[in-house]
Amino acid sequence: MVIVGSGFGGLFAAKALRGAKADVTLISGTTYHLFEPLLYQVASGILSEGEVAPPIREILKGRRDLDVRLGWVTDVDAKAKTVLVSSPDGRDRTVPYDSLIVAAGAQNSYFGNEHFAEHAPSLKNIDDALELRSRIFHAFEMADLEEDAEARRRWLTFVLIGAGPTGVEMAGQIAELAHRALRGQYRHADLSQAQIILIDAVDRVLPAFDPSLSAKARKQLTKMGVDVRLNTRVVDVDATGVEVKTAEGGERIEANTKIWAAGVAAPTLATRIAASTGVETDRAGRIRVGPDLTVPGYPEIFVVGDMAASDLPGVAQVAMQGGRYAAKTVKRRLAGKPEGKPFKYFDKGNMATISRFHAVADLGKLHFGGILGWLLWLVIHLFYLIGFKNKVTTLMHWTVSFLGRGRSERISTVQQINARTALNRLDR
Amino acid sequence: MVIVGSGFGGLFAAKALRGAKADVTLISGTTYHLFEPLLYQVASGILSEGEVAPPIREILKGRRDLDVRLGWVTDVDAKAKTVLVSSPDGRDRTVPYDSLIVAAGAQNSYFGNEHFAEHAPSLKNIDDALELRSRIFHAFEMADLEEDAEARRRWLTFVLIGAGPTGVEMAGQIAELAHRALRGQYRHADLSQAQIILIDAVDRVLPAFDPSLSAKARKQLTKMGVDVRLNTRVVDVDATGVEVKTAEGGERIEANTKIWAAGVAAPTLATRIAASTGVETDRAGRIRVGPDLTVPGYPEIFVVGDMAASDLPGVAQVAMQGGRYAAKTVKRRLAGKPEGKPFKYFDKGNMATISRFHAVADLGKLHFGGILGWLLWLVIHLFYLIGFKNKVTTLMHWTVSFLGRGRSERISTVQQINARTALNRLDR
Repeated sequence: MVIVGSGFGGLFAAKALRGAKADVTLISGTTYHLFEPLLYQVASGILSEGEVAPPIREILKGRRDLDVRLGWVTDVDAKAKTVLVSSPDGRDRTVPYDSLIVAAGAQNSYFGNEHFAEHAPSLKNIDDALELRSRIFHAFEMADLEEDAEARRRWLTFVLIGAGPTGVEMAGQIAELAHRALRGQYRHADLSQAQIILIDAVDRVLPAFDPSLSAKARKQLTKMGVDVRLNTRVVDVDATGVEVKTAEGGERIEANTKIWAAGVAAPTLATRIAASTGVETDRAGRIRVGPDLTVPGYPEIFVVGDMAASDLPGVAQVAMQGGRYAAKTVKRRLAGKPEGKPFKYFDKGNMATISRFHAVADLGKLHFGGILGWLLWLVIHLFYLIGFKNKVTTLMHWTVSFLGRGRSERISTVQQINARTALNRLDR
Repeated sequence: MVIVGSGFGGLFAAKALRGAKADVTLISGTTYHLFEPLLYQVASGILSEGEVAPPIREILKGRRDLDVRLGWVTDVDAKAKTVLVSSPDGRDRTVPYDSLIVAAGAQNSYFGNEHFAEHAPSLKNIDDALELRSRIFHAFEMADLEEDAEARRRWLTFVLIGAGPTGVEMAGQIAELAHRALRGQYRHADLSQAQIILIDAVDRVLPAFDPSLSAKARKQLTKMGVDVRLNTRVVDVDATGVEVKTAEGGERIEANTKIWAAGVAAPTLATRIAASTGVETDRAGRIRVGPDLTVPGYPEIFVVGDMAASDLPGVAQVAMQGGRYAAKTVKRRLAGKPEGKPFKYFDKGNMATISRFHAVADLGKLHFGGILGWLLWLVIHLFYLIGFKNKVTTLMHWTVSFLGRGRSERISTVQQINARTALNRLDR
C-alpha cells in the first residue's frame, strides 16, 4: 500500500500500520516530517530546522515493512490503482497500490493573486521558514545600514496578512524581536520604532477560537505594540508596500517585509484525484470524502488531514487522527474484519501563542489565556514534539529565549543575502 | 578604527578592544561568527548552523563603542586611510579608519581549476556546509532510488580531495554515516557498500601533524573502511567522477559526490592591499607582514590570521592570538605607551577528529591518539565554543550522535533538492 505525504496524517498512518501484513511505501517530497505548529519559531530564530523537522527515516527506522521514497506524487490513476511519482533523479515512476492514503496537506493560497507571493512569502515549510527568517533579520540589518529616515522606516515596518494562528504568532515574534530580544544590538536603527501591523478582513483575530480568547489575544497583541487592523482587506502587495481597503476607504502602508498568512488551498494533486475519481471538491479544492474518509466509490482511497473537505480545523490533531483511522481501517480489512465505525474527531482543543508567557488555549468548554494558557501550550507542544533529543534541545532553546533574550538560530546564508542584494538593486 | 572580518581574528580583536578609547567599526560579510573547527559537523548532520555560527551582534551586545556592519570590504586606500565597503543595499560606501585590522581569512583554492568547484564544493562557510550536507544525504536518497547497479555505486562513492583536517574529518563522518549512523534506514541501497576515498598528493594524511599521529590517523581511517590513497594527484573533476594520477599511471574514479579540501588562498582583498601599499605577498597571495603584524611602512594596518603569510598553521589559535595582539597594540598606542614586543605565537597544539572516540592531538612534545585524543578534543572544543547555550545543546547533540546514532540536523531544502533534480536531468 502507498501513503502520500510525511506530515501528521502520513506519519501517523505509517506508525499505525506497524504490524499490519502489508508492504507500505511512504512517498514524500521532503526527507523530513514537519512539526508545523513550531515552524514560526524557526522563522523567528528560536529553533533550528532539525528540531522541528526530524528525518522520516530516523523516526521510522527499523520498520522492515516500510519503504520511504523521496518524490512528488503528481497523479493518481484510480482505475489502474497506481500513483505517478516524479523523482529527484528526473524520472517519473508508476507505483501500484492496493490501498492509498493521501495526506499531502495544504499549500498557501493567494486567492488568485499569485504575484503577491514574491513580496509576501508564506509559512508552510522549512524553505519558507528559512526565507522568512532571512528576510526578518535582514530587515533589521538594512534598517541599521540605511541613512534615509523614510527608507529606514520602511525596513522597520512589518506587515502580517491574516490574523489566524500563524499571523498572530509571527506578529508576536517580530514584536518580541524588535522590542525585547534584539534590543541594544543595533547602533543606528532604533528598533523600538519598529511597526508591526496585523491585518485581517474579518472582525477578530483567531476567528477559529472562542470570541473571549480572540479578545484576550487582541488585547495582548496591542499591549506588545502590534497594530491590529481588522475589517481590512489587502488589495495589492508590491516590493515596498501594501494597499489596504476598509469601509472608510483605501490606504497604502510602506513596508519592505510582508508575510502572507491568509489562506490555504488543496495542492494540485487534489484536482488530479478529482479528475480520476469524479469526487467533488470544495471551494478550496479539498476533496469531499465519505464518513470513513474514503473517496465515494473508491473504498481503497483515503484522504486525510488538510486535503479533505470538512468542518474540522486545519490542525495537526485532525490529520493525526485521520491518518490513524485510515491505517486502522486498512489493517481491519487485511485481517478480514468487518468495517469499523465512521471517523469521529476527538477535539483536544486549539492553541496559539502570542508572546512568551502568553497564549490562548481553547479546549471546548475550557478557555485559558495568559500564563496558564502559555504553560499548557508549552507542555503539550513539548509532549508532541518527536524525539527525546528534540524535546531536550527545544526546552533548552526555549529557556534561553523566554527567560533570556537569545535568538541563536538566525543565520541568513550568503546566498540569501546576495539574492536580497540583487533585489535591493532592482528596487532602485 | 575598523576591523575587517568576524572570524577568530576579527572577533578576538573586537573583544580585546573593549575599554579602548576608540570607536570600532566591525565589517563582515556575514552576520555570524563562524566556529570553523566544528563546521564539518554541520555538513554531516550533527550540529545546527546556529550552534557553530552565533550572531556577532549577540556575542558583542552591550558594546556601545562598537558598530557592526554587514558588508564586504572590496578595497583599501592606504594613503587616504579608507576602506571601500560593498553593502547588501547595493551601495558602495567609503569608511575612514585611523587603525585597520584586516582578518578576512582564507578562501578555498582550486589551484587554477575553478571549474572543479561546481562538482567538488569545499567547506569554508555555512553556505558550503549546507550545500555539502544536502549533497551527502541526497546521495544516499538517490542510491536508494536508483535501480541500476553501476549508477547506484556512483551514488555510494564519496571522494575527498585533500587529507588535511577537513578531508580527514569529512571522510570519517561519511564513513560513520554510511556504516553506522544511517544503517538500516534505507531499504534498497546497501550503505555498507559505500566507498569513501580520501586522496592526497603527499605521502601522509594530516601532514601538519607529527608523523606518528599521521600513521595513527591513517590506521584508524582504514579500519573504518576509508580507502586512503596517498601520492595521488587529482587531475580532473567532473559531474560523475574524478581522474587521478599516481607514479604508476592514471585512473578514473566514478563518484557523484566529491568534496574539495585541498588548498586555501588569500581573498582578493589581499591583492588590493598589496596594490595600495606595495607589500609583498606569498605564493598563496597572503600578505607578508612585519614582526608586529603590520604592513611595512603602514604601522596602522594590521593583517592577522590566515591572510598573513607565515610559517604558522592556518588554525583558529593563530588568528585569535593575532587579533588580540593587534588590538593590544592599538590600545597601547591610544594610551600613548611605547610599542610592545613582536608577535609571538603560543602554540596550544593541533587536533583533528577521525571518528567518534578517535582523534589525534599534537601538543608539541605530547602526542595523543585514540580515545584520549578524542576526549581532549571534546573538552577543548566545548570550552572554546561561544555561548553557554551553544555548549549545552552541542553537548546534547554529541551525546545523541556519539553514544546513539542520531543525526537530526540533516535537512535539505526543497530548493536544494530541486537544484539537484535539475542537475540530474542535465547529466543524462
